[in-house]
Amino acid sequence: MSEGKLIIIGGDAAGMGAASKIRREQPEREIVVFEKGYHTSYAACGIPYYIAGMLNSSDDLIARKPEVFIEKQNIDVRIRHEVLEIQAESKKVKVLNLEKQQELWESYDELLIATGASPIVPPLEGADAEGVFALSSLQSGIDVFKFMEKHNPRKAVVVGGGYIGIEMAEALLERGLEVSLIDMAPQLMTSLDEDMAEPVMEYMLENGVQVFLKEKLEQIERHTDGKVKKVITDKQSLDADLVILGLGIKPNSELAVKAGVKLGEKNAICVKKTLETSVPGVWAAGDCAESYHLIKEQQTWVALGTVANKHALVAGINISGGKAEFPGVLGTAITKFKDLEIARTGLSEKEANEMNIPFKANAIEASTLSGYFPGSGKIRVKLVVEDITGRILGGQIVGMQLSAKRIDTIAVAITAGMSVQQLVDMDLSYAPPFSPVWDPVQTAARTLL
Amino acid sequence: MSEGKLIIIGGDAAGMGAASKIRREQPEREIVVFEKGYHTSYAACGIPYYIAGMLNSSDDLIARKPEVFIEKQNIDVRIRHEVLEIQAESKKVKVLNLEKQQELWESYDELLIATGASPIVPPLEGADAEGVFALSSLQSGIDVFKFMEKHNPRKAVVVGGGYIGIEMAEALLERGLEVSLIDMAPQLMTSLDEDMAEPVMEYMLENGVQVFLKEKLEQIERHTDGKVKKVITDKQSLDADLVILGLGIKPNSELAVKAGVKLGEKNAICVKKTLETSVPGVWAAGDCAESYHLIKEQQTWVALGTVANKHALVAGINISGGKAEFPGVLGTAITKFKDLEIARTGLSEKEANEMNIPFKANAIEASTLSGYFPGSGKIRVKLVVEDITGRILGGQIVGMQLSAKRIDTIAVAITAGMSVQQLVDMDLSYAPPFSPVWDPVQTAARTLL
Repeated sequence: MSEGKLIIIGGDAAGMGAASKIRREQPEREIVVFEKGYHTSYAACGIPYYIAGMLNSSDDLIARKPEVFIEKQNIDVRIRHEVLEIQAESKKVKVLNLEKQQELWESYDELLIATGASPIVPPLEGADAEGVFALSSLQSGIDVFKFMEKHNPRKAVVVGGGYIGIEMAEALLERGLEVSLIDMAPQLMTSLDEDMAEPVMEYMLENGVQVFLKEKLEQIERHTDGKVKKVITDKQSLDADLVILGLGIKPNSELAVKAGVKLGEKNAICVKKTLETSVPGVWAAGDCAESYHLIKEQQTWVALGTVANKHALVAGINISGGKAEFPGVLGTAITKFKDLEIARTGLSEKEANEMNIPFKANAIEASTLSGYFPGSGKIRVKLVVEDITGRILGGQIVGMQLSAKRIDTIAVAITAGMSVQQLVDMDLSYAPPFSPVWDPVQTAARTLL
Repeated sequence: MSEGKLIIIGGDAAGMGAASKIRREQPEREIVVFEKGYHTSYAACGIPYYIAGMLNSSDDLIARKPEVFIEKQNIDVRIRHEVLEIQAESKKVKVLNLEKQQELWESYDELLIATGASPIVPPLEGADAEGVFALSSLQSGIDVFKFMEKHNPRKAVVVGGGYIGIEMAEALLERGLEVSLIDMAPQLMTSLDEDMAEPVMEYMLENGVQVFLKEKLEQIERHTDGKVKKVITDKQSLDADLVILGLGIKPNSELAVKAGVKLGEKNAICVKKTLETSVPGVWAAGDCAESYHLIKEQQTWVALGTVANKHALVAGINISGGKAEFPGVLGTAITKFKDLEIARTGLSEKEANEMNIPFKANAIEASTLSGYFPGSGKIRVKLVVEDITGRILGGQIVGMQLSAKRIDTIAVAITAGMSVQQLVDMDLSYAPPFSPVWDPVQTAARTLL
């Protein structure tokens, strides 16, 4: 067990979670955190709701501020410090103090890379126009909010129909903007199968979002004052006072790779189950690192808050001398657009196909509550199960209130290696205000028997 | 496999569920159902919400009417026919046509007893006064509804603080009545541990129900016209225009025991996992029959709609010549009082004590959603886990909207034999409108590590 100086690069969930765990285990250890932004430990997933005007302040999203880490936990957090280089052989990092524009070298005994991920911004004409945003840090959310306060945009174009695109479409609609959403793909939410993504699109259309699929962003035009004017696709031109780019994210692994750390899936940092990288004494956690997928049985890249928090715990335990292994992910994710809830876990039909697993899949429609109960709405549940064995491989849910959290039932069943029969047999809860007597998840399972 | 004449006693979930399954498997088989009431296949769990005035009509609670079974499924359903006696040796039943007051004997090759359960009505002075009700059949709910329409009661006393008592207190409050609730026990909801039942009582008090614990119903006084006037306990006298007795239920197993069928736990009909009784060719399903408990590893009596539906399926498969075994129960149950949701599964602390299982238990308080998200409320989650192994034995949840359905996550984990560590490791869904980043169920698990 090392008690030597630990440097952590990145002050969000993974970095600070690990720092806190290590501090609890090793009260005397020197822990230095370099965070290039202004904030620590914030809920990036909450940014769209902040922009929607649903929160009191951006501070609501901050779980713990740097001064609290410094004063209460004796963790030496230095915000506005960007690590420019890692020298793994000599165990030191080159750091730029962004406020003073001074560089310094800081040595470490152990290093945790928790640099997160960044939005993909295409190298297009006009992508840097004023009013064009890609969400990443809390600061980027604050920038959007301030822009809206100042310029009161009327027309927004959201580029990309994934989680961020859908949540931002809701947020901007909530703020009274006209919202168009474009996506290159033939469907929204490519983590869902097409039959499950379709009701999402229908619902968005019904609720006033103009959705354009199979359209490629080609250029962004700006006014003479530099502000965004139009979004040009391969099919049309859309007026825009505000553009949100939700074109996906990529792991921030450049520092690591330059230091000789091996990369893996989608250029995420390759880690063992302990979260140690290929370089001894150098660890990685959170959105910049790989995760083992329980069904794919291989390393994958899943950048989600839940995973970052679990990474933090595992890395923290190992760095402070304990023993822990990352348990693995299923890619469980959940979101909503207005009252429509959306969730998925495990393998989609698409992924099962890619893996050449023989499977059956089926989607059913049921009601969220007892059909006669006020507020009961539609729910669509899809299960993907292995042929012959009936083992559940994945699930997708789209439906009205009380639909999506049911994905957890499926996630636990998958993790336990259960079959559809076992899911049908399960003693799940029922009362009219909560569910039909057969939970929709079980109804989906029954049709696959 | 028998193709002989099947008689089913009881036309609710278990009886009609089995009948439907058998009809699908055996299109030509003669199936006769005797139901002493007026209705078939209704949602008894919905009765309080019907009384609350939340539904359009009592018909909303009926999943399928007798004429539909007769005409569409060729099942010979005879309502208002009460079976008075089973002669198991000669394979016949004595039936009373309640409309014509005629008795007849009907012979069978196989028999399914699905007689349900009845409310316990204490043999007290005044228990039969007008305006005193014990809920059981749909008809009993209709009777309450009609009584309220006709007499417009102002003060109600609910006797018993279990599921029905709590749901009826909500319903009557909803209808504008003053509601008092009395219970002999030192806590409400005895299927919960005391620390979890306490917030339920607090919430009921805050919402205007007068709750009196450790009070025993002694007598019901009536007006000279026969209508209820007062409820007398061992401590006080309460004015009442309406009294609901929710003192628990007992299995309707008298017919069975007189026919030589063995009884088991709490006088429920003793069944094998196939749902065959001790008498070959005689089956039992639903609220009148036992169920295997997955954690207690013994037969128990759990009278719930979910169980009745699963019984129906298993009995139906076996009676029509297939092979199925009842998978077992955890006693998963869920309800709500206004906005407070309540759920439980597996063993309570009390039950673990009774079974002499060494265990740890802990309850945590968390928020239902990300704390900053509008509408986030309190949730209390308790887990009971086996000492040393950490295997999850039971869970209880009390909290605001979006709390209680999380019990299913625990139910699946228990069924899979998972430990608290495995629950912590689970890839559950997170987004601010749905959950904190660690689901409260996982937070409860973490504190037990």
